[in-house]
Amino acid sequence: MKKMENLSDWYNEIVELAGLTDKRYPIKGMNVWTPYGWKVQQLIDGHIRRYFDETGHGEVCFPLLIPENEFAKEKDHIKGFDSEVFWVTHAGLNQLDIRLLLRPTSETAMYPMFQIWVRSHADLPLKIYQIVNVFRYETKQTRAFIRVREIHFFESHTCHATFEDSEAQVREDMEIMEKLSKNLCLPYLLLKRTEWDKFPGAYYTVGIDILLPSGRSLQIGSIHEYRDNFSKPYEIKFEDEKGEHRYVNQTTYGMSERLIGAIVAVHGDDKGVVMPPDVAPYQVVIVPIPAKGSVEEIHAEAKKLAEELKGGNIRLHADLRDIRPGNKFYEWEIKGVPLRLEIGPRDIANNVVTAVRRDTGEKTQLKREQLSKEVVSILEKISGEMLVRAQAELDKNIVDADSLDNLPEKMIRLGWCGAEECGREIEVKTGRSILGSNMKEPDARVTKCVVCGKESNTVIYIARSL
Amino acid sequence: MKKMENLSDWYNEIVELAGLTDKRYPIKGMNVWTPYGWKVQQLIDGHIRRYFDETGHGEVCFPLLIPENEFAKEKDHIKGFDSEVFWVTHAGLNQLDIRLLLRPTSETAMYPMFQIWVRSHADLPLKIYQIVNVFRYETKQTRAFIRVREIHFFESHTCHATFEDSEAQVREDMEIMEKLSKNLCLPYLLLKRTEWDKFPGAYYTVGIDILLPSGRSLQIGSIHEYRDNFSKPYEIKFEDEKGEHRYVNQTTYGMSERLIGAIVAVHGDDKGVVMPPDVAPYQVVIVPIPAKGSVEEIHAEAKKLAEELKGGNIRLHADLRDIRPGNKFYEWEIKGVPLRLEIGPRDIANNVVTAVRRDTGEKTQLKREQLSKEVVSILEKISGEMLVRAQAELDKNIVDADSLDNLPEKMIRLGWCGAEECGREIEVKTGRSILGSNMKEPDARVTKCVVCGKESNTVIYIARSL
Repeated sequence: MKKMENLSDWYNEIVELAGLTDKRYPIKGMNVWTPYGWKVQQLIDGHIRRYFDETGHGEVCFPLLIPENEFAKEKDHIKGFDSEVFWVTHAGLNQLDIRLLLRPTSETAMYPMFQIWVRSHADLPLKIYQIVNVFRYETKQTRAFIRVREIHFFESHTCHATFEDSEAQVREDMEIMEKLSKNLCLPYLLLKRTEWDKFPGAYYTVGIDILLPSGRSLQIGSIHEYRDNFSKPYEIKFEDEKGEHRYVNQTTYGMSERLIGAIVAVHGDDKGVVMPPDVAPYQVVIVPIPAKGSVEEIHAEAKKLAEELKGGNIRLHADLRDIRPGNKFYEWEIKGVPLRLEIGPRDIANNVVTAVRRDTGEKTQLKREQLSKEVVSILEKISGEMLVRAQAELDKNIVDADSLDNLPEKMIRLGWCGAEECGREIEVKTGRSILGSNMKEPDARVTKCVVCGKESNTVIYIARSL
Repeated sequence: MKKMENLSDWYNEIVELAGLTDKRYPIKGMNVWTPYGWKVQQLIDGHIRRYFDETGHGEVCFPLLIPENEFAKEKDHIKGFDSEVFWVTHAGLNQLDIRLLLRPTSETAMYPMFQIWVRSHADLPLKIYQIVNVFRYETKQTRAFIRVREIHFFESHTCHATFEDSEAQVREDMEIMEKLSKNLCLPYLLLKRTEWDKFPGAYYTVGIDILLPSGRSLQIGSIHEYRDNFSKPYEIKFEDEKGEHRYVNQTTYGMSERLIGAIVAVHGDDKGVVMPPDVAPYQVVIVPIPAKGSVEEIHAEAKKLAEELKGGNIRLHADLRDIRPGNKFYEWEIKGVPLRLEIGPRDIANNVVTAVRRDTGEKTQLKREQLSKEVVSILEKISGEMLVRAQAELDKNIVDADSLDNLPEKMIRLGWCGAEECGREIEVKTGRSILGSNMKEPDARVTKCVVCGKESNTVIYIARSL
């Protein structure tokens, strides 16, 4: 399993070996969430819930099915999705009068209800989110977590009285993303998409992109400013303080199980997955190392150790199976448990445990007193260092260019005049996509468009995207 | 809103007034989970997760869609469900080669994978569960939480080496139900269904039933012993210690959002819902009672009170809105918050708060010192007493009968010889369903069949079911 020899094969193999998913379900692109993978996703969802709850979003759950007539109300939206939705045409033994589709995203399920819920300025802002599965009939090659047909994701939807308020919401979403990236140890870019690449129906779209070790970009989420593009066809109006009826301004923010794919691809190594401590189902695995004749004693000590650590709010597992320690190391390394604690006769004699970091392989002796505090601090250190290393890797792989010739297989930064004609030429000539301009750290340099040479202050990022 | 004048109208109104659901979604029987209702469901799900995790079940998430050919493998099962499934026939612009159905339950999604997962006795027992939505095309009148077409539910599925092991699993499931009933303050019966009323494909079915204030029974879940009825068509075999290949023995256990419907119907009153403390989104609401000119001071004190209670692991909300206290009482009573804490000038002067129980209306003064401990103990008391009252109500409404004449609108207990002919006659003559014999407290009395008069030691429960 050499990661860098063939990233794609390595990835496909490791997600199953680590027990994150099972791809043998009899429908292509619909995989089974096995307990270990589902636990990772639930931990991610837990962080998302916390951030949305803290910022006053209510959690809801809308029906899966959407009537065709509601779906068709926003013209660009239906054009963007109608080639990739699943259609329910029959129920029981009857053909349905109105076809129903499986939500590919929930604008068209939610907005008829928003139209009922929003009456006056006192109802605003309306901020909700849901964590559900959505369905898209992907025709490209599927890949676990990254391109699947049933997708676990969250979507937040907000309504505001003014465009300024909805712009402030976009900034709040960006702050949530920043917090989440620390949990996942995932550096990212916020790139404002071109007009022809924005979400169907959006006023503008901010893509949340990461860079894979192959040099390709992967979009892991997006934040959309809709302005009144949806509130007009869906008639979502409110009465303002002066008694005038106005359309609300809307935003959405969504991210999917791709986050797991990103974690695997960015942090994994030849030994397997490396789980960021904040989303690791087990942050610590205890492996007893018995000497001959001391099995029971050492196992009892490992159990005692687990008890000692239980109070410390650490997710841990004591592996007391009757197999060789080396086999246990191997399995837990594939699964990416951040910290392994070994305990053998010598450790007991010295009142220590041996700690081995999954990310660096670093081995240290830890005193048994205050162990739980020490473990928490090592986990924090691992988390911080994983993010720093990944950030350095990302920075290294973004390079500036002033022409379209001989571009390396990295993310490229270059000047663009903003004209669609030049933009299309950049994409066609390089075989890469324009991801957009940096919203997190706007790049104010004055450059020239690589195509027409016109002076420009728009620096864009381009990459081959997965 | 008089509950007992028209239970059905009261129920339909109260679930929306309490903010548990919104029934205005444009597909019949598919409702929107609003934040308050969804929070209740998540708290219920949290208890379920805990019990399944404690008993060694792994949580999974299987795909929603099932290919028609997999669904058709167990003959009784497909016969039982094919008139009520939703069919996906098209994806994007294409017609599918094999139709896909939305899971009505997940046997036929899971068992092809079990066939791959189970190889040897070392893989057994296999114990998993999932918490997902399922879909059934109900043709009867829909009712929020009780009869809907998209149903939130959990399902556990297990495989065992022997029939004895699977029978032990049925008992474990019953123990989980007993724990859950304490959280929900819901007394219940475990009734073994007749052959003609068992789950399609099951060896036997245990219905989990409650009694509604109308005298009707409501099935809130079921536990099934499948024996090898599914493992044979799905070829789920293992190699035992002697190297012989044998079919596994299977069980399932499932309950749905009907639990919320049951809570509302059993505990609610003319003022609204009464939430059991273990599943109440807010267990405590703090309402400041300002005197003239003291608004700011009293609000500050209410906030301080909330801070004092926050350490105590209590879900609470301080309602500091600028509306009259009476309106706040009214709203939180509809939502069923178990305990209201009022704080006014006199309370502050005496260093107390006034506590009002939602279930009984009882009003007491509580000292500010150790308040959080006191509140926890009152919540436990409420929970215990809600269950005891509901149990007394259930007991009172089960009556014995020795003929089919003049039966009251209650749950009836009577003798039956076990013959289908007599059973059918009981159902037809009374317009009630045979729910079955008591599995929790087997009734060993020797009685006579109410139809044929034959001596029998089977006492069954019958009721009109909702």
